[in-house]
Parts: sequence; C-alpha cells; structure tokens
Amino acid sequence: MKKSIGASTIVFPTPVFIVGSYDNKGVADVMTAAWGGIACSIPPCVSVSIRPERQTHANIMAKKAFTVSIPSSDYLKEADYFGIVSGKNEDKFKVSGLTPVKSDIVDAPYVKEFPFVLECSLFKTLELGAHTVFVGEIKDVKVEESCLNNEGKPDIVKLKPMIFDPATWGYYGFGKFLDKAFTAGKTVKK
Amino acid sequence: MKKSIGASTIVFPTPVFIVGSYDNKGVADVMTAAWGGIACSIPPCVSVSIRPERQTHANIMAKKAFTVSIPSSDYLKEADYFGIVSGKNEDKFKVSGLTPVKSDIVDAPYVKEFPFVLECSLFKTLELGAHTVFVGEIKDVKVEESCLNNEGKPDIVKLKPMIFDPATWGYYGFGKFLDKAFTAGKTVKK
Repeated sequence: MKKSIGASTIVFPTPVFIVGSYDNKGVADVMTAAWGGIACSIPPCVSVSIRPERQTHANIMAKKAFTVSIPSSDYLKEADYFGIVSGKNEDKFKVSGLTPVKSDIVDAPYVKEFPFVLECSLFKTLELGAHTVFVGEIKDVKVEESCLNNEGKPDIVKLKPMIFDPATWGYYGFGKFLDKAFTAGKTVKK
Repeated sequence: MKKSIGASTIVFPTPVFIVGSYDNKGVADVMTAAWGGIACSIPPCVSVSIRPERQTHANIMAKKAFTVSIPSSDYLKEADYFGIVSGKNEDKFKVSGLTPVKSDIVDAPYVKEFPFVLECSLFKTLELGAHTVFVGEIKDVKVEESCLNNEGKPDIVKLKPMIFDPATWGYYGFGKFLDKAFTAGKTVKK
C-alpha cells in the first residue's frame, strides 16, 4: 500500500556535483549541487539547478562557463563544506586547502584533487522559480588516469563517487554491481 | 594526472527513472530514463530528458502529465526492459506483467510494483537537440508504507533503488552510509 508524503524534492539517487566558476575578478568559487544530471546526448549536456542568491549563479551568468567536478568519498568533508558556506563570505578553495585549476577549454576552474571533471560552456538557461537550470554543453571530460579501467573508461570502484540522499540528508557510496544495462531486460522481451 | 576522454555524457550517479504516461487512447506506457533529476525546490520540480522518437514524448506533450516511478533492484530486469523496447511496438505493461495504476492527481499511470512514485504535471519544456527536457511539477510523492523509516521518511535500505553507470552500462545498488550532509563539512569551515 502506498502512502502520500506530499510534494517533495526526493528522488534516488541524486549526485554530489561540485560546480566551479570564476567571478568577474577571476576569483575561483565552488558550490555543491544535488539538483542536476545529464540533460541531452547530442550535443552532450549536463544541467545543474542553482539559486540566484548563490555566487555561482552570478559567475556563470557573467562567464558563460562552468565545470562539474565529482569528488571521491575521500573528500566528503570538503564536498559537504562547499555546500554549507557561500562564496560571498568565504574563499572556499583557500579554507579547504584544495586547488583550483583553470580549464584549458572553458573559462572556469575545477578541483584538482577530485578525480572526474566535466568542462562546460553555458548552452541554455531555464527559470523555474527558486532555481535557475543551467544547461552546459560538455566540451570535454577529464579523469584521473588511475581511475580508468583497462578499456580507458571511468571506473566507479576507483572513482568512489558519492550519492546524496535528499530524504534523510545523508551521503552514501556506490554499492555492488547488479547487472548489465540494455541486456538484463532481454529475458522479459516478447 | 588527468586524461581527456572527450565530450561524453557521463556523470556519477545517474538514476533509473521509469516515466509513465498515457497516449491519446488512454493506453499506459513506461520508459526508462537516466537523464534527469530534481530541477527546482519551489515549486518542487523533476526533469527528465526524452527523445522525440519516443512514445513517451508524444504522450507527455498530449496529456501534460507524467509520473516517475523508482524501481527497487528486485525489478531490475523489468526496469531494463522498459528501456530497450519502444512503446510504439510493444505493450510494455502487458509483456512485463507489471500493473499500471492511474494517478489520482495527474493524468498519467505509475507502476504499482515499484515502491516510490512522483506524480507530475508538465511545467515547462526545453529543447536541447536530441533530447527535450520535460520539467514536471511534483504534485505528490507516494511511497510503499513498508519502505518508510520510523520518522515517516523514505528509507533507501528498504527501497533498494538502483544507480545506472553510463560509462560501462551497468546497474549498481546503493552502498554504505558515509556521513551526514550539511554537518560533515562543518569541521572544514573557518
């Protein structure tokens, strides 16, 4: 039996995206965003939803570029810190001790210590209410070489990405491999 | 050292969303979508990206409503099947043996056997290229009572939601609880 819990912003999983941007003076900022995901295959796009109050909002509007760094769980504390403090009040790179790296493709910084990065130019925006959806065209993906598998693909066991649970405000790791996609369902097919 | 792997539609995690809709004759259809996520807090919105070739695309355009059901890993095969067959060619509910339930709030069906459901009215659309982003306003969330914790919140251990890995096309379960969000990062703060 299903029970109504009301209109809530809960899905499983949501990501831990670290959005990197520069302000008009070239100061690097980062913020944590769980509202987002891949938005299109051609062109390859990722979307992140950000409130207008955020420094990142002004930065992306000005620079038309951002990055999405995905932290390993080794940096859980830093990733969480990036979400609880505003770039208007603190230099988050300085306080955390992590290192901003200027993308060689777009006008935005990413986090050196995080193993997986999307470099994006602003493609479209969509105003929804409390949040603006920023759709970035993914210009390149960069991955720590030590986190690639034998076929040169990103390996989640080595990357150790995190999951945010918006129902109970917790971080989780990836669990066990269950089955192959686009294959497992063939036994159900007519 | 980071290595470029080119512009790819890869992030971690991506969800396994089962999008439910009716066609003009009232036939229930479902499809699997990994491109999507929460898009706004006020109003509460979820987005899913769908290609115009899909039956679901025409259905949402016609009915201005959809649901997002989140399957437990017990239904991995059915969830995968919903993504590899078109609703134009097969009655996916009939073939899979799963049960469409008409939402009491929006003009769209959800999957009875899946423990977590968002009921959405179409709020906005955004054309990006190969995919259209459908932003749904979440009108209600319904959860199997057996999957709620002591505080009445959805419990991921009981729900057993899946994660899609777009790099290697695999399904994964949720892993261990790591730490509390909006708390763990306080030790980093100035």
